[in-house]
Amino acid sequence: MARLLLYARTAERLAPALAAHGSALEVLVLGDDGVLRLDGVEISPDAAQVEAAWANHEVFFSPVARPFFVALLKSGGLRWVQSAAAGFDNAVFGEIARKGAALTTSHGQAVGMADYVLHGVLDHFQRGPERRAAQGARVWWREDFREAAGSVWLIVGFGAIGQGVATRARAFGAEIIGVKRDRADPGPAHRLVGLEDLMAELPGADVVVLCLPLTPSTRHLANAAVFAAMKPGSVFVNVGRGGLVDEPALLAALDRGVPAHAVLDVFEVEPLPAQSPFWDHPRVSLNGHASGLTGGQHVRNEALFLDNLERFLGGRPLRNLADPADIVAGLAG
Amino acid sequence: MARLLLYARTAERLAPALAAHGSALEVLVLGDDGVLRLDGVEISPDAAQVEAAWANHEVFFSPVARPFFVALLKSGGLRWVQSAAAGFDNAVFGEIARKGAALTTSHGQAVGMADYVLHGVLDHFQRGPERRAAQGARVWWREDFREAAGSVWLIVGFGAIGQGVATRARAFGAEIIGVKRDRADPGPAHRLVGLEDLMAELPGADVVVLCLPLTPSTRHLANAAVFAAMKPGSVFVNVGRGGLVDEPALLAALDRGVPAHAVLDVFEVEPLPAQSPFWDHPRVSLNGHASGLTGGQHVRNEALFLDNLERFLGGRPLRNLADPADIVAGLAG
Repeated sequence: MARLLLYARTAERLAPALAAHGSALEVLVLGDDGVLRLDGVEISPDAAQVEAAWANHEVFFSPVARPFFVALLKSGGLRWVQSAAAGFDNAVFGEIARKGAALTTSHGQAVGMADYVLHGVLDHFQRGPERRAAQGARVWWREDFREAAGSVWLIVGFGAIGQGVATRARAFGAEIIGVKRDRADPGPAHRLVGLEDLMAELPGADVVVLCLPLTPSTRHLANAAVFAAMKPGSVFVNVGRGGLVDEPALLAALDRGVPAHAVLDVFEVEPLPAQSPFWDHPRVSLNGHASGLTGGQHVRNEALFLDNLERFLGGRPLRNLADPADIVAGLAG
Repeated sequence: MARLLLYARTAERLAPALAAHGSALEVLVLGDDGVLRLDGVEISPDAAQVEAAWANHEVFFSPVARPFFVALLKSGGLRWVQSAAAGFDNAVFGEIARKGAALTTSHGQAVGMADYVLHGVLDHFQRGPERRAAQGARVWWREDFREAAGSVWLIVGFGAIGQGVATRARAFGAEIIGVKRDRADPGPAHRLVGLEDLMAELPGADVVVLCLPLTPSTRHLANAAVFAAMKPGSVFVNVGRGGLVDEPALLAALDRGVPAHAVLDVFEVEPLPAQSPFWDHPRVSLNGHASGLTGGQHVRNEALFLDNLERFLGGRPLRNLADPADIVAGLAG
């Protein structure tokens, strides 16, 4: 019998699906009171001894995230953790990898993130703030705006998120350049280039989207030289990680006017401190690291977890298995 | 030699292209002072005698629109007018048709209009107003939003604009139902239905987009019964004509909360009167009949005009020729 650690709210919602595994599975539940219970009986963190856990969105952003990971890391026989995130630049994932347990990631957020990127760029192209101000002032506003057709999108990181952005922008008539290590299959891109081509491609790009993982080699990838090479009128989007951007360099570039706008979902320090100049910068649309938060994300991630749980119990290969070397490299960044 | 009527600013911009026709063409120019001039010599409207005219966006919305159409309609030998609009529900187009002159329409605005529709729907799905308010209040906002994937779009009128909306929304994973008379080729729709199926399709639609012409049979197509059949949480978009909508019925429906939001570019009376309740309705995003106003529109329409001018001078068939019966029917609406 395998023991699985779940947040109480998650366990309740999934009860019917979990019951299907019968005696092959027992569920250790962490309540909102921070207490672990097995069939209603309280268990100390030292006795948690779970083999598997689902560190989903619900528990990750709950007040009991800490006791959840403590119970999991205290379990000597831990074999598998399903994460709700695409990245693994959090210290806890490194500890999981060092324990020799498997970590599987989720990409259910790619859909919402791609929607978010399109919305942010369209809002700038269509002069959303001016249009809304005109409505507020009862002004019949008839001004030219910028269509997406013919614009060039440089999508840095061409995994599930980057390809989702590409598919959508391409339907608007945009030209798509993807930045990717493996360039065998262009997918929804018109062409793929390497990270070493970034500086050469920047002057031609109307939209630059960062959606790559944070590692030592990508930290502060978007620096003063990158912003200086960007095209006048261009839009900069970061939905990857805050550490990808040299924030003072971005602020200085925005003050100079190129890029013309930044759509930022992630920051070096999160939550973004109240005194940050990003909050009220006229060239910034910002969001609280929530670009993937949709109902659909949860449905897709839950389906992935349940599928992986079945694979785990059946001893079959897990989907979205992270490479331990990548996890540890991500942490060093 | 054919005489062409142009607005002065347009004539100036197109001078090189027009010069290519040499002595086959002479251009009667209408200045911002409302005076007609041929090679710098003033001509009275009664002596305009033009055979062709380009009633483009620039002159249509200029203060000299009236003298432009007066000169054109006083010309006994008028043979062709290129319009910058897709529709023809303006009295002047009926008068052109009744004179026996050909009217050609433009669809260069379809690209911008489709972008506008996507932006309006995404802004509602992504809770744009709340996200912006949070930024203004320096609140780290992490709330679920609605992704477009899986949403059902009922696109009423499936010409260049409707298909442009469909292509874009489909790339987001939306399901597209087009409403069209001729249903031989579904194009970017998953399926096509007739206007007679509208009431049956409404309860399943998350987004309803009106982009069909205004005729006697489509006037007040969106009435109280239509709004009553819409799905809770749905979005209503009108980029066709204001006359397609029974506005008091829409306001009553918005007050009740279904549809949850309306994206309105067109109104029964334009410019929208200052006392209209649409301006500050919390469920309305509005725009000044400007959803197609992009630089690209002007480029595409100008290319069409220049192509049609060459066809006209060469006696070849014109592109986008309107059916005179449709024009007159459109006016009766």
